[in-house]
Amino acid sequence: MRSICAVEGVRAGGIKERKYGLALIRAEGTAAGVFTSNRVRAPCIDLMKKQIASGTLEAVIANSGCANAYTGPRGYTDAEWMGILAGETLGIDPEHVGVASTGVIGRYLDRLIIERQCRSVAPRLERSENAEEQAAQAIMTTDLVQKHALTERGRFRVAGICKGSGMIAPRMGTMLAFLYTDAEVDASTLQKLLRRVTRRTFNRVVVDGDMSTNDIALCTATGESGRVNEGNLEPALGECCRSLAMQIAADGEGATKLIEVRVHGAPDEESADAIARAIVTSPLVKTAVYGEDPNWGRVVAAAGFAGVEFDPYRISLSIGEEEGKVPLVDRGAIVVDLSKAKQAMQGKQVVFELVLEEGSGQATAWGCDLTEGYVKINGRYTT
Amino acid sequence: MRSICAVEGVRAGGIKERKYGLALIRAEGTAAGVFTSNRVRAPCIDLMKKQIASGTLEAVIANSGCANAYTGPRGYTDAEWMGILAGETLGIDPEHVGVASTGVIGRYLDRLIIERQCRSVAPRLERSENAEEQAAQAIMTTDLVQKHALTERGRFRVAGICKGSGMIAPRMGTMLAFLYTDAEVDASTLQKLLRRVTRRTFNRVVVDGDMSTNDIALCTATGESGRVNEGNLEPALGECCRSLAMQIAADGEGATKLIEVRVHGAPDEESADAIARAIVTSPLVKTAVYGEDPNWGRVVAAAGFAGVEFDPYRISLSIGEEEGKVPLVDRGAIVVDLSKAKQAMQGKQVVFELVLEEGSGQATAWGCDLTEGYVKINGRYTT
Repeated sequence: MRSICAVEGVRAGGIKERKYGLALIRAEGTAAGVFTSNRVRAPCIDLMKKQIASGTLEAVIANSGCANAYTGPRGYTDAEWMGILAGETLGIDPEHVGVASTGVIGRYLDRLIIERQCRSVAPRLERSENAEEQAAQAIMTTDLVQKHALTERGRFRVAGICKGSGMIAPRMGTMLAFLYTDAEVDASTLQKLLRRVTRRTFNRVVVDGDMSTNDIALCTATGESGRVNEGNLEPALGECCRSLAMQIAADGEGATKLIEVRVHGAPDEESADAIARAIVTSPLVKTAVYGEDPNWGRVVAAAGFAGVEFDPYRISLSIGEEEGKVPLVDRGAIVVDLSKAKQAMQGKQVVFELVLEEGSGQATAWGCDLTEGYVKINGRYTT
Repeated sequence: MRSICAVEGVRAGGIKERKYGLALIRAEGTAAGVFTSNRVRAPCIDLMKKQIASGTLEAVIANSGCANAYTGPRGYTDAEWMGILAGETLGIDPEHVGVASTGVIGRYLDRLIIERQCRSVAPRLERSENAEEQAAQAIMTTDLVQKHALTERGRFRVAGICKGSGMIAPRMGTMLAFLYTDAEVDASTLQKLLRRVTRRTFNRVVVDGDMSTNDIALCTATGESGRVNEGNLEPALGECCRSLAMQIAADGEGATKLIEVRVHGAPDEESADAIARAIVTSPLVKTAVYGEDPNWGRVVAAAGFAGVEFDPYRISLSIGEEEGKVPLVDRGAIVVDLSKAKQAMQGKQVVFELVLEEGSGQATAWGCDLTEGYVKINGRYTT
């Protein structure tokens, strides 16, 4: 199994027809979710919050192609209808069905397509690699690759699938991420762990700095492998979410390179986070990475507008990692060898490490380069 | 005269040799300035703040090609040296010379080039259209066009030249803007007016959301046309800065269209400003404008993450202006005619008007579309 179907108690299925896809995932257990903080959130977010409140979820239905966002009361009714449809076809309580959508904003759901797709998928749910790939494929929009992650820890597992490529920005839940574990954990602990892990993984991915209306990260614990210590579950969940987060960054719209920014020595974690995200959001840093142009001054300039107080002449900056690490600035002194720096920008992953001398705060953020491809994809999205 | 040389008491000159340019502007008077708030500001910003503190300026020297930013004590000494050089060649007190730089960050000044260029320009300062064009040309980096503005109000004038095309973002002074008026006004009033006007003009231009290390907007009042009432001077200064701000947006790196976002009915001006800037900063809005794709949901989504509380179902949104205005959302109801909306996106200027029903706050922000050209320009900037 690639990921979620390795978790005891999870069955999945999906269908994708051109722009329109639908995934169903069946898994009973305690549930937790984190959501977009966009003021214009989709009605399904409100519905999902309500469903999650009970602490239990039995299944999830998710469609792609239409975000059912900015659709008001009609959109809310449509989301409820999706939950009822899934509940009926799966023979479970619609109150325990989570609903998620992704796609164009400001369009109403096409119930005909969704009903047909749901009725086609529901009878075919399975615990198989093929089934989970169908589900992961079904929720893709501009994604080029499926995103799966699986963390195994002796007797329990944490796994997830997700989608996300554009309109990816910090301070949100994420795009759609469906996480499963067969560990037994109560809903409030799961919520606490998911929130903590999300802050350090999904919330640190930036593709373009735009926060979606529909972001959801959802975790269901089926409990089939028995009680697991919180201290064991959190790192496993963290590892799984980190893998998915990096997959989102690497598959950013039009991206050719994954950018990883590691900040150490900041006044606190929040400051480190702000600096790492400012750098990874900067279009000037992103285009320089694309062009393999070692214009490191843009990295320093981006750190400077992150809203954090620090002494710019006590920082160190390097590019690359391990043996390939090339120093650019050493405690305020410019030490860069431009041709070596350029070399360190080749390859699929570019790592910047920024060390401040202000405290012990650290954070890592992920993003991708900005290319002509991003412009092309987003210049003609609805037409 | 196109602009600054129409102001009594102003003489200018400049030279541009490939990437390297130098402008000199001679004008004695009361002076005010606003500056970048980037934590990593260039040494010349610190020097300029010191010179401005006296309330008097006699000349400005500005170079392009090297920003002399992130250059520490050596950079500060280089900036001081530039001021002394200009003072000596112009025969004035170096304490009253402002110094500005723009270009690559993290490189030291090439004193040989600057000295040669300064000695060549200083003897040729004039009050002529040709001279001011040389100065405007000299400070250009990736700018494609010179930027001039002139506002005449009966007996007094306000004029300015500026440069700016990339690394343009809110919450700063601006890029380099040199403003002149022959009105007589004391330095503290001038500072107050410049700060107020900057907040509504330069600070509302976004090209890419990156805040420069070197932004300066400087205004010198020669006083040669006599005392002018504050209430008359502010709108004239505002008109002039607004024109320059729009010219920066229209000449954004790789831009094909100017975007204007007008927000009305926000809780207050600060909220209107936040929403207008979020929209104009959004890469998804910018690429949609480039592709003439009426994907208006992105505009609403961007408003939603601006950090302002508002009821999304009481907003109205339109595209275009005057007879060409096409409604997209009317008090929460989707009313868009997509083919008409697409038509309203043709042409060199695209206007979005967003009306909330929360209060009387209003603000206008300017930006430009995001194109393959931006990616190309910034992928190979230093190489």
